[in-house]
Amino acid sequence: MLAAIVYCHVKPEHVEAFAEACRANHAGSVLEPGVRRFDVLQERDDPTRFVLYEWYMDDADAMAHRDTAHYAAWRDATADMFVEPRSAVRYNGLAPVTF
Amino acid sequence: MLAAIVYCHVKPEHVEAFAEACRANHAGSVLEPGVRRFDVLQERDDPTRFVLYEWYMDDADAMAHRDTAHYAAWRDATADMFVEPRSAVRYNGLAPVTF
Repeated sequence: MLAAIVYCHVKPEHVEAFAEACRANHAGSVLEPGVRRFDVLQERDDPTRFVLYEWYMDDADAMAHRDTAHYAAWRDATADMFVEPRSAVRYNGLAPVTF
Repeated sequence: MLAAIVYCHVKPEHVEAFAEACRANHAGSVLEPGVRRFDVLQERDDPTRFVLYEWYMDDADAMAHRDTAHYAAWRDATADMFVEPRSAVRYNGLAPVTF
């Protein structure tokens, strides 16, 4: 199990559009067979900071996500919205073990 | 929807015991009516760093979690395992909207 927490810091004027792009990415991603989580979070203390919380059955599934149309659409739509490049931390998922 | 990412940095000699305590906390927490996520992650690049990824229907559910026996057991069992105090960042959950 590969989990990734992706940190996104966006410009204030793009907060709404970024949230919408992430919702669309979520809608497509949860249909991928290897995806177990694709949650979109907005920080309470700073609404310009978002997290994408992604969980894949294995590393190949994470790679496959990068080949989807909804990922490409999200990447292109949000390219100019970031204050700084997004960053990700990778984890092994310990629990749950079934979904 | 309240999501929290809780960052835990533990001493190397406690990694296995900490993981086990988190699994037990997970098992109890997912039975709480207000809990939608209670995932346990271990960082790939540094196995002494864990994340608890928690998602509650509302703030009252997050408070109620603190009153459970499994939370108290986890808190007490892990109290001396940390390198530094755990920290948490709070988010509004944007997606999914149903579970």
